[in-house]
Amino acid sequence: MNRDALPEIDAAILADLERNMADLARLVAIPSVAAQNRGIEECALLVRDLLTERGYRSQIMPTAGNPVVYAEGDGDSERTLLFYNHYDVQPAEPLNLWESEPFTMSRRDGKVFGRGISDDKGHFISRLHALDAVRKVHGGRLPCRVKFVIEGEEEVGSVQMPAFIEANKQLLAADACVWEFGGEDENGRPEQYLGLRGICYVELSVRTAVIDAHSGMAGSIFPNAAWRLIWALNTLKGPDGRIRIPGHYDSVKPASPRDMELLAAMPDNSDEMLSRFEIKGFLDGMTGGIELRRAEVFEPTCTICGLESGYQGPGSKTVLPASAKAKVDFRLVPDQSPEEVLANLRRHLDAEGFSDVAITYLGGGRPAKTDPDHPFIRMANEAAADAYGKPPIIAPMVGGSGPNWPFTNVLDLPITMCGIGYPGGQVHAPNEHFVLEHYIRGVKHAARIVEGFAGMSGGDTARG
Amino acid sequence: MNRDALPEIDAAILADLERNMADLARLVAIPSVAAQNRGIEECALLVRDLLTERGYRSQIMPTAGNPVVYAEGDGDSERTLLFYNHYDVQPAEPLNLWESEPFTMSRRDGKVFGRGISDDKGHFISRLHALDAVRKVHGGRLPCRVKFVIEGEEEVGSVQMPAFIEANKQLLAADACVWEFGGEDENGRPEQYLGLRGICYVELSVRTAVIDAHSGMAGSIFPNAAWRLIWALNTLKGPDGRIRIPGHYDSVKPASPRDMELLAAMPDNSDEMLSRFEIKGFLDGMTGGIELRRAEVFEPTCTICGLESGYQGPGSKTVLPASAKAKVDFRLVPDQSPEEVLANLRRHLDAEGFSDVAITYLGGGRPAKTDPDHPFIRMANEAAADAYGKPPIIAPMVGGSGPNWPFTNVLDLPITMCGIGYPGGQVHAPNEHFVLEHYIRGVKHAARIVEGFAGMSGGDTARG
Repeated sequence: MNRDALPEIDAAILADLERNMADLARLVAIPSVAAQNRGIEECALLVRDLLTERGYRSQIMPTAGNPVVYAEGDGDSERTLLFYNHYDVQPAEPLNLWESEPFTMSRRDGKVFGRGISDDKGHFISRLHALDAVRKVHGGRLPCRVKFVIEGEEEVGSVQMPAFIEANKQLLAADACVWEFGGEDENGRPEQYLGLRGICYVELSVRTAVIDAHSGMAGSIFPNAAWRLIWALNTLKGPDGRIRIPGHYDSVKPASPRDMELLAAMPDNSDEMLSRFEIKGFLDGMTGGIELRRAEVFEPTCTICGLESGYQGPGSKTVLPASAKAKVDFRLVPDQSPEEVLANLRRHLDAEGFSDVAITYLGGGRPAKTDPDHPFIRMANEAAADAYGKPPIIAPMVGGSGPNWPFTNVLDLPITMCGIGYPGGQVHAPNEHFVLEHYIRGVKHAARIVEGFAGMSGGDTARG
Repeated sequence: MNRDALPEIDAAILADLERNMADLARLVAIPSVAAQNRGIEECALLVRDLLTERGYRSQIMPTAGNPVVYAEGDGDSERTLLFYNHYDVQPAEPLNLWESEPFTMSRRDGKVFGRGISDDKGHFISRLHALDAVRKVHGGRLPCRVKFVIEGEEEVGSVQMPAFIEANKQLLAADACVWEFGGEDENGRPEQYLGLRGICYVELSVRTAVIDAHSGMAGSIFPNAAWRLIWALNTLKGPDGRIRIPGHYDSVKPASPRDMELLAAMPDNSDEMLSRFEIKGFLDGMTGGIELRRAEVFEPTCTICGLESGYQGPGSKTVLPASAKAKVDFRLVPDQSPEEVLANLRRHLDAEGFSDVAITYLGGGRPAKTDPDHPFIRMANEAAADAYGKPPIIAPMVGGSGPNWPFTNVLDLPITMCGIGYPGGQVHAPNEHFVLEHYIRGVKHAARIVEGFAGMSGGDTARG
């Protein structure tokens, strides 16, 4: 890393802050909720414009789903750094719990609020912000080539990403990748995430009749869609937390000794989690330590994300529901795949007598990991230590999901995480936000990764 | 019964139809949804006015909940007939399934639509309509005394009725009672219902955290409110339909030989139910006949009426819900009581490890029956045969619930059912309606009950 340039880069970052916040406000104002099919085209156009305004060759590439914004920019070397981000956001519901309008960027108490402000619009802006500062210091040219892939379906499972990447393998060729998120923990230590779990997200639905019935008339003799759903769900997982679908654990690779070594070196944030969410305790009596950290990321999950049937308003309505639905999120660990989970789930429900429970696949992707000892990762860790003044926490795997499998396994790239997030950011929840100081540190870190990447010898990250 | 007066009464009923439909439209226009605490006071005032306009001494009586409208009218004898009705209605949701505005009365194809049009506003109007016709023929005076109790919480479990009746036992003293509903089956045969099941309606709720969490981060280690609720519900009833709460069946009295005799004489409407609701079959492989009819009304039920947790919108949201709720309706048979069900339920959930599942009691009442061989019932059956031209179906018990226990066991009254309903009326569901021809027959039947009751000797129905 060219350390001489850093003070000038950092000054440029601070000088450019308000312009980037203004661009972020424009992005947040578009409610690009993929699950609700809102604001997608409009947001893709703005993302393209933000890239074009900064001199990148930018285009909107159609897919079978939401379009991908692709861009590239030349640099002083052929070495290429690929940035992956997404312009879609989670739904803002429940709206009544927001303290300010979710789709109007709002600053208060050193924090910046809005749906998608952190996940992932703020991260995208932070990358542009960092590259602008690096370019300014290098006389208007970047020290390496850059490419951007900014998709519009990350929050609904990145359905199109594997095929998009397979189809554009040459276009997307690069030497390393900066992932869409990252940040610091409660104590200001940067975090390096080296793997993401996979996901298989389904809706289970039952319909027992064409209309709801009077519960008094039908309660003893009609099938009840809500009961059918409950009994079916109950066969998926019991109070012991073990997933009961035969074959579900067959492809699971346990954490390696190196994974466990990295987990052991991570700080314990269990008390912080307990107090932030006000939960009484973790599952299975876990209280923290390496076993909690292992379970958190190396165990497959089966999470009910939503339940819906019959009357949900105030007071009572004596109705026997004709239909019932559950949204269920399976998180996958190496080497599980969504296809295998879906097949096992259908077979299991049929075998348990629940052929009446329909499965709708709402998206998914495979888990993937980057080698913690890759030279690019070592460089990124050094950049983090420099930007934050603290050595990074290195997590061999995190609980969340994203389409990193095609990046690691098709494009053959090492992936580093960096960013503006922190555990209190209420990502996916009401009052999503980032802390402005965290944002600035995240931009400094990203700028250092670009500098460091450009300074690495080609052999360290041979193009795949 | 004074049969000579009947042609003149029937003519008066037809002549008065449109005025009564206009009054019904005024009632339907008030969305008196007790569960949502809407339109209650306004509807009570209109009910009082409708009674006062017809010459009854009418008053609004406060309770600890929604007010009761009480009215009385003198007659040519001291014998007193008590009419029980209710002015509250079920919620109109789901609104998108209504073909016309639920709170605007709408007539098409010989049917009259609206929320509460049958249950119970149309029934109330049909009683006023019948009494007007009888009075007209008797020179402006009724042949017996009448009293009205019109409550505003029937659809939320008639919480205040037992105490109200206990407190007003002298005021409400009467010789017999006409219940709030009734009508005919698919083939135009009148139905006499001699008992109603009790009910215990609860909301079960779980809260595991103060805010929802990201399912990727928390799925392996946080308690999930939706799962807790599912596992708790699963302990209440299994796919075999048997309620698993210890003690739940302890007070259950099986159907008597006389009950079974009456059930055996009832027509089989199982095919009609299957085709109207488009259900594949009844529970437990039942296909019809006396066993289906017995189960329908003499078995306790545990019905999930509603489920709510997490994200329910389109597509996927990767959230781990902090709270989950279910609405559960227990129908009770003699001699179960809501108090006993609640106590057993709490004990059971605690014993199964679900002390975290809170129970909110939303209303209930005890089951009750009237003697099928009471002289008043025999008279009412003859009145039905005359009004409909067909002998009534006599049901010893029906599946629905209502606060008839204080009427039968505190006021010591025989209760007859008569009315304007039919099985296709979508009571409690979207597009609730009655058929105008059924309405007219129901009014004629009610008028004959008044005539017949006035003509009975005092000894047949000695004041309790």
